[in-house]
Amino acid sequence: MTAAHNTEARAIEVINRCEKLAHFSQDSGSTRRTFLSPPMRDCHREITCWLEAAGAEVYIDAAGNLRAFYPGSQPAAPRLILGSHLDTVPNAGAYDGVLGVALAVALLENLNGRKLPIALEIIGFSEEEGVRFGTPFIGSRALAGTLHDELLEVRDREGVSLGQAIRNFGLDPAQIPGAALNNDTVGYLEFHIEQGPVLENLKCPLGAVETISGQSRLEFKFMGRAGHAGTTPMQLRCDPLAGAAEWITTVEKVAKIRYGLVATVGNVAVVPGATNVIAGEVSVSLDVRHCSDDIRIRAVEELSWLAEEIVQRRGLSLIRTVLLSQKAVFLNPFLVDEVEKAMRKAGCVPQRMVSGAGHDAMIVAEKVPAAMIFLRTPGGISHQPEETVHVHDVAKAIDCGIHLLDQLADSTPVRERRQIGG
Amino acid sequence: MTAAHNTEARAIEVINRCEKLAHFSQDSGSTRRTFLSPPMRDCHREITCWLEAAGAEVYIDAAGNLRAFYPGSQPAAPRLILGSHLDTVPNAGAYDGVLGVALAVALLENLNGRKLPIALEIIGFSEEEGVRFGTPFIGSRALAGTLHDELLEVRDREGVSLGQAIRNFGLDPAQIPGAALNNDTVGYLEFHIEQGPVLENLKCPLGAVETISGQSRLEFKFMGRAGHAGTTPMQLRCDPLAGAAEWITTVEKVAKIRYGLVATVGNVAVVPGATNVIAGEVSVSLDVRHCSDDIRIRAVEELSWLAEEIVQRRGLSLIRTVLLSQKAVFLNPFLVDEVEKAMRKAGCVPQRMVSGAGHDAMIVAEKVPAAMIFLRTPGGISHQPEETVHVHDVAKAIDCGIHLLDQLADSTPVRERRQIGG
Repeated sequence: MTAAHNTEARAIEVINRCEKLAHFSQDSGSTRRTFLSPPMRDCHREITCWLEAAGAEVYIDAAGNLRAFYPGSQPAAPRLILGSHLDTVPNAGAYDGVLGVALAVALLENLNGRKLPIALEIIGFSEEEGVRFGTPFIGSRALAGTLHDELLEVRDREGVSLGQAIRNFGLDPAQIPGAALNNDTVGYLEFHIEQGPVLENLKCPLGAVETISGQSRLEFKFMGRAGHAGTTPMQLRCDPLAGAAEWITTVEKVAKIRYGLVATVGNVAVVPGATNVIAGEVSVSLDVRHCSDDIRIRAVEELSWLAEEIVQRRGLSLIRTVLLSQKAVFLNPFLVDEVEKAMRKAGCVPQRMVSGAGHDAMIVAEKVPAAMIFLRTPGGISHQPEETVHVHDVAKAIDCGIHLLDQLADSTPVRERRQIGG
Repeated sequence: MTAAHNTEARAIEVINRCEKLAHFSQDSGSTRRTFLSPPMRDCHREITCWLEAAGAEVYIDAAGNLRAFYPGSQPAAPRLILGSHLDTVPNAGAYDGVLGVALAVALLENLNGRKLPIALEIIGFSEEEGVRFGTPFIGSRALAGTLHDELLEVRDREGVSLGQAIRNFGLDPAQIPGAALNNDTVGYLEFHIEQGPVLENLKCPLGAVETISGQSRLEFKFMGRAGHAGTTPMQLRCDPLAGAAEWITTVEKVAKIRYGLVATVGNVAVVPGATNVIAGEVSVSLDVRHCSDDIRIRAVEELSWLAEEIVQRRGLSLIRTVLLSQKAVFLNPFLVDEVEKAMRKAGCVPQRMVSGAGHDAMIVAEKVPAAMIFLRTPGGISHQPEETVHVHDVAKAIDCGIHLLDQLADSTPVRERRQIGG
């Protein structure tokens, strides 16, 4: 079997494994696997089999992360983490998160027992999506040592606290500090589906993520005067929905003329919301992202100012609430360069990218150098059962990963555990 | 006591009676009195006392309408109906509907037993708002003979059919045909609050309704491609909410430049409707009204065409559903002229109006000549506990009604029961 055939076979195996894990679900007929739900145990058991067969030691840490250690050729070898998350949204696809873990397993299997000058840790994070507790990144926060105690009190819809959920799974939340990154860790790599249409549009299988966008989330509440749709002449109206609509078109215009900016109104709630009643109050969501915090913050200011102008001209009023303002995260330049080199060796045109979505890499990057590799997502479709990947792209990701491990194992900065920048 | 003082005192009594009836409610602390609900019986009992004291014979017809007959000076005198409705919306004000009945009682009391060359019938309709069964005008349809049998099978939220509700109130739905207009009826008059801001804006207490607007209700479903708000660049989006917003601003523009046209988007439903997800589907309601059916229908066509243009330009798709297309109703020109004369005599500048809302008069007008008199509604506020009327305006309405009864009693066409046009 040639190397190319071998990689293609591994890619098919990775895809089959992702599809198999999708059956470990809280719902019959669709995939939902939230933080430490019963099917997460089946998922752990299955992946543990693969990892142990490849020579790794596996355990579940106190935050519910699956952790596998594959030693290096020397006892004191520096450690490189390969990871992604194992939880899913409701009615999920089979690849978001899980693919990154299955690819890590495939890279370990490809070593066929061979030890590298670096040790490998494979992590399947317990929680990234934020579905069960409304708070994302529980798993990677535990690794980064930033899962604060008060979060253990947050309750799910059934009233179960995060701490209790951990105990119910047979784990001890008091041991969470022990789940933090080992001191010998030199870097973190994450494979993940892009969940967007950029790579497909560029006809590229893989992308090297340089930055994870900063994100602002706001609510704009436009307030006017409710009235009877039949008895209130147009010139005597004070219709907040007409004002909100004008603003929504402005949001799109402002975002379209600024390179790399995305601004989205994803929800509109109209009160009272009846066909024959002029609205009294309209709440509009706003999500703004950019790799430059400065551009993002200025866009939010401009959109707020434009809302204010519309409201004043129309005799409406406005309440603006900032729900989130999260800074952009820069991935490690040394690692991103190495990813690019590995992509070239795998026969791909390296495509540097901004991730518009948050990922575990963003949390881990606070503590150790991190990089991410995106896989093309057909149709940009994610968080839906139709989410898929091309076998060929998964094979390219495996090739890229093989080259990347070789490069990093040979890299003086990594082997000497020197700071590789950040 | 002078006539003016007398009228002022009657106006205060009318207002007090409306406020009293507002306490007959299904809800404690707010007014809700739906079709043949228990408080409707209290309402009937109370109004019956007033009417019998004024010399009328009262009964409840098989559709639950309160019917009072006050004979004319001759046994074969032609009959004029004064009516409005006794049901309310939830969390209602005290005047919508009820005021028209209380004013009719005041006009009867003002006769002080005197018989006119015309007989008077006072009707308190059982149902106009459509709250309990989702179908409005149950009372006036029975009077017009257009309450079809299949409607008796319609059920309320508790699963009680309209027919059963009638039986539960002690009435016999089989007798509904007997509730139809008597052959000797020559006209129908209805006093009603405007429920809009037009008269207040014109500083006029009363308005003479000439036309009840035709009405179109539609749903426009804009369909695009849902996507991740962070990972989908602006130029690769197919966002139906951005398209819908553009169209909503167009609806307002089109309506503003056509005299008398009102077009309202009162509801927007976004799917999935999350801050961080580009919408996949947006349903937008449209309500269009005008006194000219031609202008209304052309406006709906223009707005549909504009939606189509937006959808094509943006790569979206559209499903348009017509939910209602109801023609305008013209009130009787002879009666409207008489109303105008009576207003002048009462010292008001007569203001001809279009009613943008539907009323019982619209249903009755299919069978007999009808007219409506609007009372100024402070702030245009209706269907809310804050709904109110000015005492002075109610006094003007009583004055106008007194003159109108005298005019019609003296009118040769009315007395000779000739067709008064239509």
